[in-house]
Amino acid sequence: MTVEVDFGAEGLVPAIAQDADSGEVLMLAYVSPEALERTRETGRAHYYSRSRDELWEKGATSGHVQHVEEVRVDCDADTLLYLVDQDGGACHTGHRSCFYRTVEGDHVGERVFDPDEVYDDE
Amino acid sequence: MTVEVDFGAEGLVPAIAQDADSGEVLMLAYVSPEALERTRETGRAHYYSRSRDELWEKGATSGHVQHVEEVRVDCDADTLLYLVDQDGGACHTGHRSCFYRTVEGDHVGERVFDPDEVYDDE
Repeated sequence: MTVEVDFGAEGLVPAIAQDADSGEVLMLAYVSPEALERTRETGRAHYYSRSRDELWEKGATSGHVQHVEEVRVDCDADTLLYLVDQDGGACHTGHRSCFYRTVEGDHVGERVFDPDEVYDDE
Repeated sequence: MTVEVDFGAEGLVPAIAQDADSGEVLMLAYVSPEALERTRETGRAHYYSRSRDELWEKGATSGHVQHVEEVRVDCDADTLLYLVDQDGGACHTGHRSCFYRTVEGDHVGERVFDPDEVYDDE
């Protein structure tokens, strides 16, 4: 039976994208009911942008699509975990993961593409 | 140089706790500036409960402390990643991880303790 996700007052839940093979945490973004539906229908990660106020598909601009192998929910059903096969890098800065820095400012992440080349038409 | 975390209008950021060894994503909770400060000072994960409106230390009741090896921030500095050494299980249901179900309702997580024994005085 499908778990009923608690989207709360804002109609959004945070979703963690994790590399299904390596276990690396790639990013966190927000998901609306429609974004979850599209993700499950297409097998590609969709999110909802709070700043642009719109549904978006990860990789629609960059080509860095996330192929979703599994969607998990937490105990309270108010957070999602997308287990993904990530094309290229998840981060718009060119890193594999958005979590490429420690809070102390040390650079610990791997840069896998040049954002100037990927986003040059924006 | 320490990264300035963007706690936003609510004064909270989501924090993902990940097992530093296995890479398993354990839970997501929220962190206030004080919770982050306490986490960094003590090396034990602290969060802020939105429902109880108070700072809490993970494991203070259950004994299932999270020893924090590293704190990372994402590209926008509005999400944290705690890399932890988790005593026992992270989830109040007795599972190692709060993400023990798929959205289809399949049970995929490991149960590591009996919550009735751990929380029996609550």
